Amino acid sequence: MLRPEDRILVTDLYELTMAQAYWAHGVTGQATFSLFVRDLPPERGFLVAAGLEDVLRFLEDFRFPPEALAYLESTGIFARPFLDYLAELRFTGDVWAVPEGTLVFAQEPILEITAPIIQAQIAETYVINQVHLQTMIATKAARCVAAARGRGVVDFALRRTHGVDAGLKVARCSYLVGFQATSNVLAGKVYGIPITGTMAHSFIMAFPEEEEAFRAFAETFPERAIFLIDTYDTLEGARRAARVGRELRERGRRLLGVRLDSGDLLALSREVRRILDEAGLPEVRILASGGLDEYRIEALVGAGAPIDAFGVGTRMGVSEDWPWLDMAYKLVAYEGRPARKLSPGKASLPGPKQVFRFYDGEGKMKEDILALREERIEGGTPLLEKVMEGGRLLRPHPALAELRERFREAFGRLPEPYKALREAPRYPVRLSPGLEALANTLTAPREALGES
Amino acid sequence: MLRPEDRILVTDLYELTMAQAYWAHGVTGQATFSLFVRDLPPERGFLVAAGLEDVLRFLEDFRFPPEALAYLESTGIFARPFLDYLAELRFTGDVWAVPEGTLVFAQEPILEITAPIIQAQIAETYVINQVHLQTMIATKAARCVAAARGRGVVDFALRRTHGVDAGLKVARCSYLVGFQATSNVLAGKVYGIPITGTMAHSFIMAFPEEEEAFRAFAETFPERAIFLIDTYDTLEGARRAARVGRELRERGRRLLGVRLDSGDLLALSREVRRILDEAGLPEVRILASGGLDEYRIEALVGAGAPIDAFGVGTRMGVSEDWPWLDMAYKLVAYEGRPARKLSPGKASLPGPKQVFRFYDGEGKMKEDILALREERIEGGTPLLEKVMEGGRLLRPHPALAELRERFREAFGRLPEPYKALREAPRYPVRLSPGLEALANTLTAPREALGES
Repeated sequence: MLRPEDRILVTDLYELTMAQAYWAHGVTGQATFSLFVRDLPPERGFLVAAGLEDVLRFLEDFRFPPEALAYLESTGIFARPFLDYLAELRFTGDVWAVPEGTLVFAQEPILEITAPIIQAQIAETYVINQVHLQTMIATKAARCVAAARGRGVVDFALRRTHGVDAGLKVARCSYLVGFQATSNVLAGKVYGIPITGTMAHSFIMAFPEEEEAFRAFAETFPERAIFLIDTYDTLEGARRAARVGRELRERGRRLLGVRLDSGDLLALSREVRRILDEAGLPEVRILASGGLDEYRIEALVGAGAPIDAFGVGTRMGVSEDWPWLDMAYKLVAYEGRPARKLSPGKASLPGPKQVFRFYDGEGKMKEDILALREERIEGGTPLLEKVMEGGRLLRPHPALAELRERFREAFGRLPEPYKALREAPRYPVRLSPGLEALANTLTAPREALGES
Repeated sequence: MLRPEDRILVTDLYELTMAQAYWAHGVTGQATFSLFVRDLPPERGFLVAAGLEDVLRFLEDFRFPPEALAYLESTGIFARPFLDYLAELRFTGDVWAVPEGTLVFAQEPILEITAPIIQAQIAETYVINQVHLQTMIATKAARCVAAARGRGVVDFALRRTHGVDAGLKVARCSYLVGFQATSNVLAGKVYGIPITGTMAHSFIMAFPEEEEAFRAFAETFPERAIFLIDTYDTLEGARRAARVGRELRERGRRLLGVRLDSGDLLALSREVRRILDEAGLPEVRILASGGLDEYRIEALVGAGAPIDAFGVGTRMGVSEDWPWLDMAYKLVAYEGRPARKLSPGKASLPGPKQVFRFYDGEGKMKEDILALREERIEGGTPLLEKVMEGGRLLRPHPALAELRERFREAFGRLPEPYKALREAPRYPVRLSPGLEALANTLTAPREALGES
């Protein structure tokens, strides 16, 4: 269980050893680090930036409490005067970032931190950890929302997310991009997300008869019962659900829905819909779950399955087809001097940056220009905003509902081809003249000749 | 940031709504739930059970604090008398489990909880969440250790694990199966795991010259310097590292190693080894990192790459090829009556169970028999132990070092073919006569005829 005072130690050891070496050698100038994804996976036509709020909270709380320092001292790695220096260290830098929910593409900064290098270096691990996870999940979940084409999608991932922190962030990020609710009770408490749920097979099995289990649940929750009907035989389960649904209606209540969790969801949903309709229960909704992701949702929706809502779990919650992104946090300037790494396959673009987005006459996204921060690009909308200055937040964190609405609006402006689940075209991102010129200046001769 | 008092809410809403329906209908008998993996992914010849300690701590601390109850009340879903009941609820059940580090296979219980059904049901989400993550990672990491064939392996995954909880558990589980150390400082503090690290490209770039950066780091850490040599040109970096390494030796110190993080690791490791040897520095070790997993480690070791240790990050930390397991927590008995679900593709075996393991004359694993808990199977070693009774731990949690040693011993008894990274044969697990008979009794006619 992670305690707030331990959060500063969510870091790779080398951040702290480098910090001591910087400190010992007076390397304490202003550095700018840029956080971006080098390349998009082939199955991703866009990314949805997320995780900024956690980064900013981390930077606001940036301090080494005595217990953390005592542990560091116990390792024998650090000098006492350096630990005394850490005890006083706070984050005093600036942060530029795109708002959460912004669509971003390869090489575009999600955030940039400018601070004394020791501060910016120590922040690296936590910053990547949170923005990586949340951007990956927001993107995966947005694909599910797009595939559902207006039908409801809810988050059932908690049991197989990679731990508890991931479970919370999956609920948060899937709601941000348009999921209707989550099964995660703690996420409901922490983020104010609507919580939802049905029943498990064990509930059915704890009663002598399936129908008795349905009836018991409906008695306790006459307004919100969704029966799980596949424990023994799905069609028989649907008929039993219909009987209890009719009883509920006679009492002036309403059966909310039934859930399918296994088998051929297309065929079963059609047969179950017919059973419910023939029982005079056209208002009872069908929820499907079990191994769903954007690909399966697209296939079911495309085939016209009469499914009203999808419960999406593991495959979304672990981003099953791409459980990681090639995200990097790179030094792009030190003491006003642009910096650039040339490692093969990992070269980075120098300098603090800005992204300018261009829209067509109908308000749809057309192209981005990746520029140096101080460049002015006519007609483009700059995406990165200064959100922290001198270690202080420049405005309160936006409410999740506001981010959700902003994403909905932004996603509507992304042309459909880029939302394709597979083989989406590459969204055009050009380098500005200023960035192009600077990158060429800093290219080593060997790389220019293609030798490295 | 997760607070201990919030842990009880790490649950799906339906666990709590089912609990209220059980409570309202007097369904409060003893239930046994079994946690197991239905099927192993094709790339997994074995699983390493892990996560039990977190489960037991959760069950020991099982209570709903006032703030959690206040949130539940605010949702309008629950009846006040039920919330009063929850306020007094503690876990009073028994837990049988295999020790962490035990090798398990499809259908074999990792743990079984027997308790009043409401308690066992509410525990479901957290129990799966933790055992799923830790078993998946311990398994993936064990494959890396096996592929390295005695060379060192260290955990560099934290920046791209799915959140902070995953980062901690990845460090814990990779150490459990034989990793030497982790870069995760908090894991060092929490679990006492050795921490390790080198330097980042940003460190090199913050100095005017690469060699100056090496020299500065070695001055600060003359006993533990590992230089990252691929920031600009790896071979030039190796020559510079060798110069500083010789200077260190003249001062009676020693350069520990160099790290390769990009490019053709096989070719580069050979050239770098030659450069170091020609400089008279055969003791300087080569550490490789960058996109490594068990498959790449096996290829490098097989080709004889002169790499002394592997830094394994993202692909291990997210279990990239299989980022989830088909793990289920199923009701197998209620009030002494065996229970069984028949959903297509998800049928489960009834009754509380025991696994009996058989070894050959040389002490190697030969086969397992999956039996009912009360069966006695001659000559087999039972794997599940009672670890909690009436809500009380029966012994202290074993130290991580003890689990690590136990795993090492157990893994040595698994025949090599089952350690194959791809297309491992299926380890033989047979059903006992008692389990077979019970399963047949409970099989519905439709399923027996293969119709569902």
